[in-house]
Amino acid sequence: MSRKSIDGNRFSPFTQWNRALSIRSSNRSSGTAGSSTSSHLHGSGSSSSRRGFSLSSLRGTIQPELSKRLYRLIKSENNLVSAHETAAKERVSIATQLSEWGEQTGDEAISDVSDKVGVVLSEIGEQEDNYAHALDESRATLKTIRNTEKSVQPSRDGKNRIADEIAKLKAKEPESTKLVVLEQELVRAEAENLVAEAQLTNITRQKLKEAYQAEFMATIERADKQIILARHGLRLLQLLDDTPVVPGDTRAGYPHASQARQILNDAEDDLRDWRLPENLLEDESKYVSTASSPVQSQGQSPLSNVTNVGNTRAPVPEQMTAPAIGT
Amino acid sequence: MSRKSIDGNRFSPFTQWNRALSIRSSNRSSGTAGSSTSSHLHGSGSSSSRRGFSLSSLRGTIQPELSKRLYRLIKSENNLVSAHETAAKERVSIATQLSEWGEQTGDEAISDVSDKVGVVLSEIGEQEDNYAHALDESRATLKTIRNTEKSVQPSRDGKNRIADEIAKLKAKEPESTKLVVLEQELVRAEAENLVAEAQLTNITRQKLKEAYQAEFMATIERADKQIILARHGLRLLQLLDDTPVVPGDTRAGYPHASQARQILNDAEDDLRDWRLPENLLEDESKYVSTASSPVQSQGQSPLSNVTNVGNTRAPVPEQMTAPAIGT
Repeated sequence: MSRKSIDGNRFSPFTQWNRALSIRSSNRSSGTAGSSTSSHLHGSGSSSSRRGFSLSSLRGTIQPELSKRLYRLIKSENNLVSAHETAAKERVSIATQLSEWGEQTGDEAISDVSDKVGVVLSEIGEQEDNYAHALDESRATLKTIRNTEKSVQPSRDGKNRIADEIAKLKAKEPESTKLVVLEQELVRAEAENLVAEAQLTNITRQKLKEAYQAEFMATIERADKQIILARHGLRLLQLLDDTPVVPGDTRAGYPHASQARQILNDAEDDLRDWRLPENLLEDESKYVSTASSPVQSQGQSPLSNVTNVGNTRAPVPEQMTAPAIGT
Repeated sequence: MSRKSIDGNRFSPFTQWNRALSIRSSNRSSGTAGSSTSSHLHGSGSSSSRRGFSLSSLRGTIQPELSKRLYRLIKSENNLVSAHETAAKERVSIATQLSEWGEQTGDEAISDVSDKVGVVLSEIGEQEDNYAHALDESRATLKTIRNTEKSVQPSRDGKNRIADEIAKLKAKEPESTKLVVLEQELVRAEAENLVAEAQLTNITRQKLKEAYQAEFMATIERADKQIILARHGLRLLQLLDDTPVVPGDTRAGYPHASQARQILNDAEDDLRDWRLPENLLEDESKYVSTASSPVQSQGQSPLSNVTNVGNTRAPVPEQMTAPAIGT
């Protein structure tokens, strides 16, 4: 059922993952011990952490086996996008309501501060909405992987069907002349599948990296900008004098109107000057930690021992790097 | 209908807000010019930015006029909390699905990286959930204001009713002996209302500040922690070699397992060491900008000219600082 990686068996020592640092098949919230033993039994599909997905849509069931999981993940990403969109909308609505409530109090200080805080909250909502859009784009990238998975399935099925046919025929009619034709067909199917599998691994690694790099960078952008806004929001709230008055006392005037305007200007300036930090995509893979035991010199192909040095690799045919199927 | 602030008329020059820096009554997305003229007509309630609220619940309509707006705002805050809770749940679900999809690919590198990235995404989801809880607490603080508004309404109504009665009686029977009794009643009602209004302004300012300080600080906490996680997530993705292979070529091994574990350890350490920045609540109000014209010396009470110097204020009776009504 599950695809074997080409060199999956050569590096079996590496399959001993540290399960404490994995979320796979272990329900973190209930913290059941011993669940680590079932980490390779995901085929049973009864993991409690996958609550409800079999019910979420019937369409998932007509997906080829290979793309089923990603199909569901992409659906969940859609729910995530919607949730952040809703949060953005509610945030902007709250901002307006807060400002209008503040005006209605008739208290000059509350009126001004609530209005300016509303502006800040509204911009926090805009950033939340931008984040939702970035997540949606990353979701589209994941679809490229899913589509490739989907298109590779018939190639695998075809190859296996011919191999099965040959095995059956060999058992029944070992001398059949049809065997020669089938063996030729199998060689063709295997060649075609070899290309398909290379496309799959290339697309999968590229697009997985691309999709989650985009999500993490969007997370950093939203976070940085909302920190800017929240800090200026806190400055605005400091302008509201909340020392209690006794009945009959009048509050002193509100002398901070221009200061409040300045804080909004500062927030606007800071947002405009913001840039994504530059060192985010430093090459981690160069620094292989000494604790690991890299197995690199066993490669059979001239390419396999330069896997980790990036740009010095031999060129690869164009059609291997771009998705050959419709995305 | 709307409450007059005690000193609202003294500082009328300050009512000229910079409308470009306000979200009040102006629909920012459609950007209609000239909407600033309607900024004091909020009583008409037809602002397009308040889409749908009149339909969201009938319960809002039985709230006293004074607490209606805040009642609706608190409902919107509830929707906001739910949206972030949903986002958190979907994020954690996606994390598990990504890890399980990665395992199913049979590709050691994808399997390890997707599992570890899943751990990071899951923690991003946890932070989103913590944020939702913080927003919910801030929402509870706003309820204190709403409850005070609700309890002050009868006091205002009572005072006004007696004043109306006196006016009517004076017009009809100027010599009525009942007038003396009513005047006495009015004095009592005014005294009671004076206390209620002082409670309202004290609670409103304190709790408004408290509620949004809490929201902004929670925003900073979520942002800082998600930045930590996203940065380490990007490091993990850098471990995935996405240089394309040609058909038939085998990928070199995956030598980064212990490095990936180390990245998760780093993330855990960074999260544990995180502290809220200390300078968030610096006293802004001390630095009155030179462009503003602070009107401070006109105060009639000995307290009004020390409004902005914080701790040096005269003590205020205990019952004025704490909410005297049930919260």
